[in-house]
Amino acid sequence: MKKILNDPSQIIEEMLEGMVKSYASLIHRVDDSRVIAKNQINKQVGLVSGGGSGHEPAHAGFVGNGMLSAAVLGDVFTSPTPDQILTGINAADEGEGVLLIVKNYTGDILNFEMAKDMADMDDIKVEIVVVDDDVAVEDSTYTAGRRGVAGTILVHKILGYYAAQGKSLNELKEIGENLVKQIKTIGIALRAATVPEVGKPGFDLPEDEIEYGVGIHGEPGYHREKIQPSAVLAQHMVEKLLANYHSRPERIGILVNGMGGTPLMEQFVYMNDVQKIMSDQGITVEFYKVGNYMTSLDMEGLSLTIINLTDSNWLDALNSEVKTISW
Amino acid sequence: MKKILNDPSQIIEEMLEGMVKSYASLIHRVDDSRVIAKNQINKQVGLVSGGGSGHEPAHAGFVGNGMLSAAVLGDVFTSPTPDQILTGINAADEGEGVLLIVKNYTGDILNFEMAKDMADMDDIKVEIVVVDDDVAVEDSTYTAGRRGVAGTILVHKILGYYAAQGKSLNELKEIGENLVKQIKTIGIALRAATVPEVGKPGFDLPEDEIEYGVGIHGEPGYHREKIQPSAVLAQHMVEKLLANYHSRPERIGILVNGMGGTPLMEQFVYMNDVQKIMSDQGITVEFYKVGNYMTSLDMEGLSLTIINLTDSNWLDALNSEVKTISW
Repeated sequence: MKKILNDPSQIIEEMLEGMVKSYASLIHRVDDSRVIAKNQINKQVGLVSGGGSGHEPAHAGFVGNGMLSAAVLGDVFTSPTPDQILTGINAADEGEGVLLIVKNYTGDILNFEMAKDMADMDDIKVEIVVVDDDVAVEDSTYTAGRRGVAGTILVHKILGYYAAQGKSLNELKEIGENLVKQIKTIGIALRAATVPEVGKPGFDLPEDEIEYGVGIHGEPGYHREKIQPSAVLAQHMVEKLLANYHSRPERIGILVNGMGGTPLMEQFVYMNDVQKIMSDQGITVEFYKVGNYMTSLDMEGLSLTIINLTDSNWLDALNSEVKTISW
Repeated sequence: MKKILNDPSQIIEEMLEGMVKSYASLIHRVDDSRVIAKNQINKQVGLVSGGGSGHEPAHAGFVGNGMLSAAVLGDVFTSPTPDQILTGINAADEGEGVLLIVKNYTGDILNFEMAKDMADMDDIKVEIVVVDDDVAVEDSTYTAGRRGVAGTILVHKILGYYAAQGKSLNELKEIGENLVKQIKTIGIALRAATVPEVGKPGFDLPEDEIEYGVGIHGEPGYHREKIQPSAVLAQHMVEKLLANYHSRPERIGILVNGMGGTPLMEQFVYMNDVQKIMSDQGITVEFYKVGNYMTSLDMEGLSLTIINLTDSNWLDALNSEVKTISW
């Protein structure tokens, strides 16, 4: 393993310090915690997300006015503890309650629910929205049901907009639950990530093969084959996503998300292919985003997310201005 | 080679199409060209940059109000042709003249100067600012003198601010030349980039070694050694940069730039080390930026850029709001 780091056991601490010092005008660290919170206080429902580290810029890069109030950072690929999440809830609470946006992994669900119970005892109203956008597999290494992956970023963005508009906790939970049903993601991996404390890649892929449906922690996907041209990959992935909607989407947004080790050049080539397919299918694309948003350390690969814009206000929410490190 | 692409010879065309379709509200492609221009027209000096592709998001990601007027895209690691650059000049010209911001490589200098001469014949006033921030080596594979690398992004940002403020072509050239003297960069590589049309890495590095001073096209650096902890790498690189200033900087900005294949987590760990060294040395850091800005395809590694803030207005320029894909 060749990586730019010091002691692997200190990597989260050092990353967190580097992050808050670099962007001190936007965010701060809550003392003695793994919580990054936005500096500006607004009278609104707080939005908290988080999970294992290794997915940077998610989630801390999306803390700021108009998106998340706070992010809670676990160890690499490991859920934060309930007490850390509670610290995040306290940091985010401005008296209107707090909504937790949680990717669907067993450990995260358990710990965020426990933190919710602890907050309830402190009379802070907390609700949870679970994101399970990955259509690759039902159940997986760390999951009952479907995994939560890159589509989570779109949930942050849209709920962040509505929270800033003054929606109530219950309204946000309802919007969130409708939203999650309309967001679908599928990923491919060309090379596995190497977790610093492990020191070797999480799985092996032959030099000419890719795997469809690999999770953002290297969980197994559903099919391996020789790598195909981008246009063929895009065709397969679009079909897989569209097959997961009950009724065919007419107006959509697209997120092409790099896994960490895949250059932007390839992501744009792939996006071009997706655009052509959507155009051929008569589906109108009203929102695009391309880049590294929900990564898996140095994994090579990307994911494709579709959001079915069944509510036209969601497009305004996606296009609204925010102050974050990475949106 | 395992990459997400179709025909390698079409990769620039397809990337460019993907980019302009995705961000059509900000940028457009000039017809039948390799030029990306901003949509909004202001009465100001036009700023044009460009060079070989493979450094995404540079330079097209920095086209937009307050930064570049247009970017000209060459083939991978290959200068754009004079006629393409002339198309960029024409797109950027709003009657106040055009400043070309060129990274110091022999091919780029030749072609941008030729385009300047062609524009002169069309009565468009053009000046050139050459960026040579890389302190690694004097002369190199494609360069007489020092190479232009990630510091170029800071030149785009600061000159973009002044251009929007209404500075004249000659004023911008003068500011640019002062600016370039205060910007220094040094890079390290852990793994070479693979150019799609070549299909194998540009150089070999043993599994436990890094190379200091590798260029953004894989040009040789000045020293190979076993990889050291991030803090040791940072110490060496900071010293190397500071030794290249005539007088010791007191107030600086820092850019940590990922080369394409290095996760944000490692970039923040490294930034944390740089911050500690600057603090120990009594140097005040007033601006920070961390991420993939001037990449080298899938190269693993990063570069450190210091800007000596000898003019306090430069800080306002760096902090000003812009509308681009990637700043």
